[in-house]
Amino acid sequence: MNAVLAPRPLVVLNQTGAEADALVAAAGLPVALADDAAAPAWERAADADVLFTGPRNGWRNAPAQPPAGWPGRLQWVHVASAGIDFFPPWLLQVPLVTCSRGVAAVPIAEYVITALLAHQRDWDTLRVQGADPWRETFARVDQHLPGTLQGRALGIAGYGAIGRAVAVRAQALGMQVVALRRGGAPVDGGGEGGEGGEGVQAVGSIEQLLAASDHLVLALPITAQTYHLINAATLAHARPGLHLVNIARGALVDQQALLHALDAGRLSGATLDVTDPEPLPDSHPLYHHPRVRITPHVSWAAQGAAEVTARKFVGNLQRFVAGLPLHDVVDRERGY
Amino acid sequence: MNAVLAPRPLVVLNQTGAEADALVAAAGLPVALADDAAAPAWERAADADVLFTGPRNGWRNAPAQPPAGWPGRLQWVHVASAGIDFFPPWLLQVPLVTCSRGVAAVPIAEYVITALLAHQRDWDTLRVQGADPWRETFARVDQHLPGTLQGRALGIAGYGAIGRAVAVRAQALGMQVVALRRGGAPVDGGGEGGEGGEGVQAVGSIEQLLAASDHLVLALPITAQTYHLINAATLAHARPGLHLVNIARGALVDQQALLHALDAGRLSGATLDVTDPEPLPDSHPLYHHPRVRITPHVSWAAQGAAEVTARKFVGNLQRFVAGLPLHDVVDRERGY
Repeated sequence: MNAVLAPRPLVVLNQTGAEADALVAAAGLPVALADDAAAPAWERAADADVLFTGPRNGWRNAPAQPPAGWPGRLQWVHVASAGIDFFPPWLLQVPLVTCSRGVAAVPIAEYVITALLAHQRDWDTLRVQGADPWRETFARVDQHLPGTLQGRALGIAGYGAIGRAVAVRAQALGMQVVALRRGGAPVDGGGEGGEGGEGVQAVGSIEQLLAASDHLVLALPITAQTYHLINAATLAHARPGLHLVNIARGALVDQQALLHALDAGRLSGATLDVTDPEPLPDSHPLYHHPRVRITPHVSWAAQGAAEVTARKFVGNLQRFVAGLPLHDVVDRERGY
Repeated sequence: MNAVLAPRPLVVLNQTGAEADALVAAAGLPVALADDAAAPAWERAADADVLFTGPRNGWRNAPAQPPAGWPGRLQWVHVASAGIDFFPPWLLQVPLVTCSRGVAAVPIAEYVITALLAHQRDWDTLRVQGADPWRETFARVDQHLPGTLQGRALGIAGYGAIGRAVAVRAQALGMQVVALRRGGAPVDGGGEGGEGGEGVQAVGSIEQLLAASDHLVLALPITAQTYHLINAATLAHARPGLHLVNIARGALVDQQALLHALDAGRLSGATLDVTDPEPLPDSHPLYHHPRVRITPHVSWAAQGAAEVTARKFVGNLQRFVAGLPLHDVVDRERGY
């Protein structure tokens, strides 16, 4: 009747799909919901107050400079990824940017544990499809017994939600866990996941972590400080036989230095769910290196992933409407 | 000087190799040690009081009937395996038979967890070796998201040392663990391994276990009672999509019934470290079934396995010399 005088509701633009639409509707919040995954997010800045978007929503083709009028009315952007490196730097001109760190901690931790076990137990070589392969494989294993994860040291670079989820699983397998945190901060228990930390040893540098690890997992964001964290100089400190697992970002690793360390026998293998670029060109030697396994950036993948991510956004939206501080705010200085 | 009157020392025949020789010598026990892996054990029954032997020491060619004079002077046989099914029934005519159950619990548990993760996460299909496979595999995973072990139910048939070692690892991965014990006995915590049991649910029959499990591990001995425990009738109770893992003995499973359950879509897969016989003949359909992985009876394999087994024997030898009851005595009635 008197719509002209009613206060304009908060306009929320969801670009991530039906899961968030349903959860926003179910939450009964005083917002006007728009759903448009096709339009480039930056063209909608004048229409929306809140934007929920993801790396897949056209950001790959974003202009280098912010479009005219950006960020318009936008007060807050929540991204469906853990990192913000898939977005242009001017995304951070929006007053508030939050991210989805931790939503894939369980599937990623399961990927990491699979990678550790597969490497330590030579899993990929054990399947036999005939009687002679059966006998030959048995004889080979019997001659060159594999190790166990039990008693081995796992280094975790970046002790956030993923690092903690990996740590509790590795400890149950009898591994010693050593972690490197930003600035060498101590490893505390009871973080976001409410678990982890007990019995985890902290070290102060990537060199110390490399020296202390039989397996090393990279689980930290890519920033100017962490670019090529794993390089020729740091790899020189690696414990002989180290197995490197990267589930974070490809550019954390100098891939040429990694190849040299593998060919020199310093590293026993690498499991890379991420590379720089993605995918690598067909000619890249990492693809066919006998001790390298590349998977196509799938460690996050799990049934229900979209719903878990949507739930994180809607939890923050409820806080936003209530005027409460949001979770997982991106720190402009740190870059994550 | 007066050797004729000295008491004859206990003669210990070790057929398992140098590890046990060294440990017996180091233990300083009043025994005469003989080391002979080549002679059939049953030909030495007149010479030795104690025999430490294993499935590999010619038992495959043992006569069906006990040799004349068996078991001679033998008072005790310790076998280097967890089961006694590789030995002729007349082995049990020796007054005391002990076995090495539990010595491979850690490597076997790691094998099982690898099998669960590999199956649940489609691990074997994730490695890519080029840019197009990268894109195609990413798209496939993104379309058909895998599950996680977290939240899934693991059934364990046979809750001994191996079952407990599997349970603690599976619980750390967020699995619900359900166990079947002999005669439906309750699942207790704090067994030999000093761990496990908390939060493990007990069921009373293999049918109930099959119905309650997303993944099912067979970790029980082969006896007349457990032969073809997994058969057409019991498989009819399986939870749809169940993944079967067998690290115990091939004859626990009716392999034809398993194939039918796989082809009918009732089971999503099987990981078989043991088959009946071993190896299967080249023509056997399990070798090339797309949802079956056969490995050549290697789940036990781990560096130090021989020493761990030898340590178990020498611990029992110290008790034998001291007149104490031995650990891991084989029960003639139960057959394990």
